[in-house]
Amino acid sequence: MILCDIGNTTFHFSINGKEQRYLVSANIPNFEQKVYYVSVNENATAKLRLTNDEIIDLEPFIDFKTKYVGMGLDRKIACCFLEDAVLVDAGSAITVDIIKKGKHKGGFILPGISAFKNIYPQISHKLDVDLNTKVNLDKIPLCTKDAISYAILKSIIEPIKKVSKKKQITFTGGDGKYLSQFFDNSIYKEDIIFENMRRIINANNCIT
Amino acid sequence: MILCDIGNTTFHFSINGKEQRYLVSANIPNFEQKVYYVSVNENATAKLRLTNDEIIDLEPFIDFKTKYVGMGLDRKIACCFLEDAVLVDAGSAITVDIIKKGKHKGGFILPGISAFKNIYPQISHKLDVDLNTKVNLDKIPLCTKDAISYAILKSIIEPIKKVSKKKQITFTGGDGKYLSQFFDNSIYKEDIIFENMRRIINANNCIT
Repeated sequence: MILCDIGNTTFHFSINGKEQRYLVSANIPNFEQKVYYVSVNENATAKLRLTNDEIIDLEPFIDFKTKYVGMGLDRKIACCFLEDAVLVDAGSAITVDIIKKGKHKGGFILPGISAFKNIYPQISHKLDVDLNTKVNLDKIPLCTKDAISYAILKSIIEPIKKVSKKKQITFTGGDGKYLSQFFDNSIYKEDIIFENMRRIINANNCIT
Repeated sequence: MILCDIGNTTFHFSINGKEQRYLVSANIPNFEQKVYYVSVNENATAKLRLTNDEIIDLEPFIDFKTKYVGMGLDRKIACCFLEDAVLVDAGSAITVDIIKKGKHKGGFILPGISAFKNIYPQISHKLDVDLNTKVNLDKIPLCTKDAISYAILKSIIEPIKKVSKKKQITFTGGDGKYLSQFFDNSIYKEDIIFENMRRIINANNCIT
């Protein structure tokens, strides 16, 4: 089965369980199989269609209701099938969504760790430091590098802790594994998007 | 009395109690009085000296000890004379310093509100929204503008709350007044730097 998560910058494929990424500027091969996709990028979707005849949009099959206006499709897919949870997708942005009794209650959007780090040199060249990923969060920092690393991590961790209370927190995305270590009640799922795409396909036999 | 806080981008003067700012690129008039200054910008200091003969650096008179390496002079001046406090200087960056029994215990550096807001469009044009300064922080957001405004404010407020416990928090800087409203145990001091410069001058009669 071939799945594709089409984002702003990459095609992210799962080709019979094996992951592969292409930049949206790259040429996509013909897979000679159906390609099930979700997309937030119309131009890239059109490009995929150039080399692959049978591409199937999963968007119409996603059963996810929310009062949230402007929620990205990838965020919806990550959240569907959750009953009571906090879902943190830590990529270029960090989206935090709260689901209670199967209902999406809303969410918020933090900058991703890398984006966070890149703000500081724009304020002053003196604040251009590497992230100390092992900074001690129980100790008040005593140098610029730690002062910034501590602030970045605390800025991400504390709002998530505050909103999650004692709920389980599910982390996904590139920085998900790293961030999950700061939370007791957390799990990390590497490919929640593909996992949920498979569930949507299985739940809708008609489309396979 | 003429005081000057020389920063990276501006000369900030207090001219007989009246504040005035000049960009570091501007021409500085001759004040025909002694100018007491603190500076983090050597080039700008040299420029001030071009038009004013008697300029007196207050740095040697600042009695502030800390184990913190790389603490800016303006931050030191804001913190001196405090006994037990959290000092938040909310400008282009937000510095947070902890003083306990007259000793500086360390601090951390958050991005300023404006810098924070400017990260988002760099992640995606879809995240280019105005800050909702009145966003309800007790409600999970339901649209992109609130999701970002909530995240920015929570990212700043929660780490400060966490570190301050029940200590009084003193806010200063351009966004200090706005941020102080989110804390019960806070006061706002508009010109703590000039106030402390005057105290340093008074405590060192020899230099007046």
